[in-house]
Amino acid sequence: MAYKEKYPSELLSDAVDAIGSLPGVGRRSALRLALHLLRQPQENVHHFTESINRLRDEVRYCRECRMIADGDICSLCADHSRDHSAICVVESVRDVMSIENTGQYHGVYHVLGGIISPIAGIGPSDLSISELVRRVEALEQPENAEVIFALSGDVEGESTAFYIYRKIAHTGVRVSSLARGLGFGDDLEYADQLTLGRSIVNRQEFKP
Amino acid sequence: MAYKEKYPSELLSDAVDAIGSLPGVGRRSALRLALHLLRQPQENVHHFTESINRLRDEVRYCRECRMIADGDICSLCADHSRDHSAICVVESVRDVMSIENTGQYHGVYHVLGGIISPIAGIGPSDLSISELVRRVEALEQPENAEVIFALSGDVEGESTAFYIYRKIAHTGVRVSSLARGLGFGDDLEYADQLTLGRSIVNRQEFKP
Repeated sequence: MAYKEKYPSELLSDAVDAIGSLPGVGRRSALRLALHLLRQPQENVHHFTESINRLRDEVRYCRECRMIADGDICSLCADHSRDHSAICVVESVRDVMSIENTGQYHGVYHVLGGIISPIAGIGPSDLSISELVRRVEALEQPENAEVIFALSGDVEGESTAFYIYRKIAHTGVRVSSLARGLGFGDDLEYADQLTLGRSIVNRQEFKP
Repeated sequence: MAYKEKYPSELLSDAVDAIGSLPGVGRRSALRLALHLLRQPQENVHHFTESINRLRDEVRYCRECRMIADGDICSLCADHSRDHSAICVVESVRDVMSIENTGQYHGVYHVLGGIISPIAGIGPSDLSISELVRRVEALEQPENAEVIFALSGDVEGESTAFYIYRKIAHTGVRVSSLARGLGFGDDLEYADQLTLGRSIVNRQEFKP
């Protein structure tokens, strides 16, 4: 790279390469961040890198739901005030945090760690699907429990939900998925056809 | 912080705090980056943090010009094909890189490490001004040498240039500063009054 040779120091060039490898961080921003870190007290920079290393090295995943946890079990699964008969199936840790932020859900989760995607080479065995099936099979009263699919609304999300559904249907557990339709405050004029169409088909009882 | 409690792990929360302390990185981006790093192979994350630690711990500053360097002297000062009788005075390492990227300058630099700013509590002794004065005094033929101020055009930049000028004027060195005026391709209609006014006062001979 001719551009690389313009850096005044190999150390700076290496740091810019490393920071620039983060998603959404271009080389200009990476240089700005590297020079920022260079101006910080040494202990601050060490604290910065240490907290990233510790996250990567020491983080654990809940043995129940595969959520990020500090111990053997996550704080959500350990919380006995939550409804353990409702299991919300999500793709990632971030989805759990998004749903938790709504404050509207009081059950537990199951983090798949991805979505079935033949194009990306991700099959069922790469995800925590068998753990979910075992979890559902271990429910004491599956007919009084519920599995909620909170997966993306595209083909991959729907195939993943359908794949899991076939694996757990025999237990008699109730299965639902997120409501889809127009967003609150959305304008009909600007809604996409698919969403608007499904909103009409799946119309809900009017409760004034 | 109530918000902090919503993180599923202390380790994640600490890493988000650290990454979010970078300028221009909000907490949402910090979370996205932390979860990205968590998905990377451990050795990649260690390489990432190691290159930042090495930058901070091992970087050196050129004994001549205070530019970032891997050794005792930077590659620019060590380059004998450059004109060592022209010293371009800049605020930061980044300014050197910007000027180098133009390919139009072949002299050497002097990095002040900041600008005199009574409001920010930065005085002349916080900058490498005395080193610059010694460098100019050590020139063999100061009357054939030149100091070029490439500082910002605001009050602080101009005060800093004036302060340095008074310290080096006795050597007889030639002193210049960057040309200021309309940018190439700028439209008169949209130019600010100060720039346009100075462009008229400092008009240049027309050389077709």
